[in-house]
Amino acid sequence: MKMKHTLLASVLGLLSFSTAAAKPADLIITDAMVLTMNQDKTVYENGTVVVKDNKIIAVGDKTLAKQYKANKTLSVDGDIVMPGLINTHTHVSMTVFRSLADDVPDRLHRYIFPLESKLVSRDMVRIGANLGNVEMIKGGVTTYADMYYFEDEVAKTVDTIGMRAILGESVIKFPVADAANAEEGIQYALNFIEEYKDHPRITPAFAPHATYTNTTEVLQKIAKLSLEKDVPVMIHLAESHREEEKIAERSNGLSPVAYMDSIGALNKNLIAAHVILADDNDIELLKKADVGIAHNMSANIKSAKGVAPALKMYDQGLRVGLGTDGPMSGNGLSTIDEFNQVAKVHKLLNKDRAAMPPIKVIDMATMGAARALHMEDTIGSLEVGKQADIIVIDTKAPNMIPVYNPYSALVYSANAGNVKHSIVAGKILMQDREMLTVDEAQIRKEALDFTDVVRKTIIESGEVVR
Amino acid sequence: MKMKHTLLASVLGLLSFSTAAAKPADLIITDAMVLTMNQDKTVYENGTVVVKDNKIIAVGDKTLAKQYKANKTLSVDGDIVMPGLINTHTHVSMTVFRSLADDVPDRLHRYIFPLESKLVSRDMVRIGANLGNVEMIKGGVTTYADMYYFEDEVAKTVDTIGMRAILGESVIKFPVADAANAEEGIQYALNFIEEYKDHPRITPAFAPHATYTNTTEVLQKIAKLSLEKDVPVMIHLAESHREEEKIAERSNGLSPVAYMDSIGALNKNLIAAHVILADDNDIELLKKADVGIAHNMSANIKSAKGVAPALKMYDQGLRVGLGTDGPMSGNGLSTIDEFNQVAKVHKLLNKDRAAMPPIKVIDMATMGAARALHMEDTIGSLEVGKQADIIVIDTKAPNMIPVYNPYSALVYSANAGNVKHSIVAGKILMQDREMLTVDEAQIRKEALDFTDVVRKTIIESGEVVR
Repeated sequence: MKMKHTLLASVLGLLSFSTAAAKPADLIITDAMVLTMNQDKTVYENGTVVVKDNKIIAVGDKTLAKQYKANKTLSVDGDIVMPGLINTHTHVSMTVFRSLADDVPDRLHRYIFPLESKLVSRDMVRIGANLGNVEMIKGGVTTYADMYYFEDEVAKTVDTIGMRAILGESVIKFPVADAANAEEGIQYALNFIEEYKDHPRITPAFAPHATYTNTTEVLQKIAKLSLEKDVPVMIHLAESHREEEKIAERSNGLSPVAYMDSIGALNKNLIAAHVILADDNDIELLKKADVGIAHNMSANIKSAKGVAPALKMYDQGLRVGLGTDGPMSGNGLSTIDEFNQVAKVHKLLNKDRAAMPPIKVIDMATMGAARALHMEDTIGSLEVGKQADIIVIDTKAPNMIPVYNPYSALVYSANAGNVKHSIVAGKILMQDREMLTVDEAQIRKEALDFTDVVRKTIIESGEVVR
Repeated sequence: MKMKHTLLASVLGLLSFSTAAAKPADLIITDAMVLTMNQDKTVYENGTVVVKDNKIIAVGDKTLAKQYKANKTLSVDGDIVMPGLINTHTHVSMTVFRSLADDVPDRLHRYIFPLESKLVSRDMVRIGANLGNVEMIKGGVTTYADMYYFEDEVAKTVDTIGMRAILGESVIKFPVADAANAEEGIQYALNFIEEYKDHPRITPAFAPHATYTNTTEVLQKIAKLSLEKDVPVMIHLAESHREEEKIAERSNGLSPVAYMDSIGALNKNLIAAHVILADDNDIELLKKADVGIAHNMSANIKSAKGVAPALKMYDQGLRVGLGTDGPMSGNGLSTIDEFNQVAKVHKLLNKDRAAMPPIKVIDMATMGAARALHMEDTIGSLEVGKQADIIVIDTKAPNMIPVYNPYSALVYSANAGNVKHSIVAGKILMQDREMLTVDEAQIRKEALDFTDVVRKTIIESGEVVR
């Protein structure tokens, strides 16, 4: 009897609009303004997204909802439903240092490296990552790319909360909390890669800090290993004049991008953050090597380093996605709070109000970002077969009314507080702004306790003048 | 017996730290990180603000709380308590047009004026203002300066919700919804001024649209009337190259600011919005005349018009405050969502990460804005005798943790969703993000109904390509 029923259901499942036998699903999102962010940028004004296991199994108009039967239905009353945002570059654990010495000149070398040598630990990494993960999920970021230390600790937090991430273990030539030198960093990364290489949501990676903080030999070794193991490499590239000078000295006048190319380290596994100082030749090299680019507008203008030619790179077909950079740099971790800046600063610099229209910003936050992480086959759009990483934006908040154009509303009006639900791999991680997979109050308490340590060891010791 | 007790209370009230007889108050805010924004920028890390009637009667540390007895106490668990934000320039009713044709070149003349000639009405002005008021209170804006039509309708909404506003009735040389010409606009403004001149929270004003959309005679007449009646004049000034060209033609090559000076229309009652195209001579004229400046960074870069020399003007002691511009320009109405941009774009343009530090941004959003509106004796800081316009910012939201430096946290991390309570003239208008004086659901419904009218008359008629 049971078998018969199953057979019947299978047959009927092939008939569209059949109400007699709905196909099984886990989650149906209905009454939604669906921005698919597919190739054609299809929008369903009264649309439906259907999820089974961890994947999207159907996307379409309202008639679709009747064809499926799910354990759970989210009827979202016309709210915007879109791919989860992808933050292509951060250092999530640094949340515990946020708002420290924000405007100190030459801060990385004079302030951040010494701070980190005092305070980075397994505990700090875990506590900071937990806090940042919650901030991102509450801001609609479902996937992020991280570069820091003790990335196995970050991985545990990502696994627990249920997010998706590329986690890059840092390699740097001077002693840091989890390695005495670059060689030890590479070994740490290799162990981490081995441990996490089969995780469904976590991609372990190498993260050489930058060109000038590593030797040519180390950069070449990492490039080779990354191709062998087929794992990403993340690096800060073409970010500062200091870097430009150091690399020019090392390479007989090459730019950082050209130098990376010359040593054989520019390849399809590379994700380059910042890329502010890139000329047309550099852009051509990046395109040819199929490198992913993390565009961190908000952090880059805060440090007055400049604005990457991200719009030009995007228009030329490069893989460009938005990133926030770390919480001491950006300082927020939700790209939605930066859409506004990304659109407007490019308009300003191009002296053209039509430059960088909202749809390009949203593309850079979703499919562009997926492409930057070389994950466009898995995430970045709401299409059948892709992972069910989905967010819902409240269009009834007063700042979001009205929505004549959803891309405009998202870019020019929305803030992180307008994200209502966040879903990763088919699992609801936040619903109505409540975290479902972690204890937000406990995470907050641990973070606040740790900031007391920071206050005592750094601020009260007089090393920072507030 | 009663009299005796009162007498005793009065005597004891003079003794500090007396627990025997607390002085009466209406509202005490305790356990607060109080940013006073007074001359010395005093911060009370564990502070107290005491309110009676509509005014602040005490500000200080935690010992203060014991000296008063109030009907209501808000113990805010370390959250930031600061002056309500002041939005120095907007067109609040245009919320109902938000996200329409955002990036159309020459939009004011080709798109907005025609749109307004079709759709501006008493109803539209009321509906749009109600929506914008809620958005602002939810974003921590307690006072705003508005320029539009039917300002008596806006006034009614401001009166009802309990906000504070300067409301400028537009004067423009072509026919608009509430006047056939500038003369009728002036008459409308005069009637409005007469009606509202004694309102405790509403300051009626003239709002000549711009220099080039009014004649010299009209601008002079308004300047004269404003001094006679002692009411503000709001104008868009030095905003665009089109304006520059038109005024240069009219005035033998003068800049818009110099032209206003030459016709006797630059004075202490003037509040000039934008002031992008101002050279050192213009800045000197503005300073000498004691003109208030509304700095609308976010709107000005969206339209690619440029960035006002607002930091320079501020540093030279001019009256400079932040504004959002209207919802078709900014597009949000909460300056808190623009702090980030204001700080960072000035850093970028100055090539200096230390330029425009957070404390200056917060000053421009509070005391600077009060000075720009010539209201610095009444609002802009938490000081005894000032109006009790106070906001509370949630410092336990994940994006706000930690707060080593409250100014940094506000500028680089906060968004409008972090505003927890908003108080105007001692009255709580929003508590825990719930509106207390208006029906948000009803306001939302009216706004959404009106957007259906906009869709039918504008979008479906094919006049706008979405």
